[in-house]
Amino acid sequence: MAEATNSDIGGENQSFKIRRLEISDKRKGFIELLGQLTVVGSVTDEEFDRRFDEISSYGDDHVICVIEEESSGRIAATGSVMIEKKFLRNCGKTGHIEDVVVDSRFRGKHLGKKVVEFLMDHCRSMGCYKVLLDCSVENKAFYEKCGLIHKGIQMSKYFD
Amino acid sequence: MAEATNSDIGGENQSFKIRRLEISDKRKGFIELLGQLTVVGSVTDEEFDRRFDEISSYGDDHVICVIEEESSGRIAATGSVMIEKKFLRNCGKTGHIEDVVVDSRFRGKHLGKKVVEFLMDHCRSMGCYKVLLDCSVENKAFYEKCGLIHKGIQMSKYFD
Repeated sequence: MAEATNSDIGGENQSFKIRRLEISDKRKGFIELLGQLTVVGSVTDEEFDRRFDEISSYGDDHVICVIEEESSGRIAATGSVMIEKKFLRNCGKTGHIEDVVVDSRFRGKHLGKKVVEFLMDHCRSMGCYKVLLDCSVENKAFYEKCGLIHKGIQMSKYFD
Repeated sequence: MAEATNSDIGGENQSFKIRRLEISDKRKGFIELLGQLTVVGSVTDEEFDRRFDEISSYGDDHVICVIEEESSGRIAATGSVMIEKKFLRNCGKTGHIEDVVVDSRFRGKHLGKKVVEFLMDHCRSMGCYKVLLDCSVENKAFYEKCGLIHKGIQMSKYFD
């Protein structure tokens, strides 16, 4: 396992900690935070625990990062990354960043950039030759500040 | 495990079989085919076998599809899909299609569409609520024919 990075992010009156998702984060607003990104639905404790275990079973190949606001104990930001193992590029690896969101109450504190940097650092430590993510055109400038560049387009199909 | 789909694709004088990647496909031109997509480098038999085993350990969560031309025993087309497990969308799943390529000698036979349909069928059978892929603007029309629509943009960073 690569070393998990726990680090403090200083603010004026706020202190944030960035780390991997823990099973207790369901009680700290993690699911409600995802609801600021898209439809979440109702996730029972049992469903949460089962999905947490499924994702954890991938070890360093599927990592979910969270930032906790320490005084309130609330999850203020999150993002995830999956490591894809390929045959091309000398059996290379690619990181796929997904579901980056910052709680609307904590925006303007560069927490989104910290999440992306955490995930990119993880990809680097795993030996990935590149990292990818899809976003809306509106978020292009944010990801450029994180060091990514616009390359292709995203195609999607939603099943019924 | 979901049932693997093996099916015959009839042609005029050619017969193709679509199936999952097998370890013997290294000798059938699989790596050379990836070289028509991007840089492959030199992959030894040991490296190939190790990566094959790593990907196989994910079972139905990482599937590589190939189409074999039966008379020559050559791999004519390929594509892969990773299944991502999320918390959002009621602990939903997303399929990520990657590395779709058809051998230049076998183009115009709709093999690319067959690969994408195989991978999308797999996503459906795994209970994904959507499937995503990134491509160049030039390939947009092809993926529209496969039933996908243009949604967002792809951002990337290559590590040194």
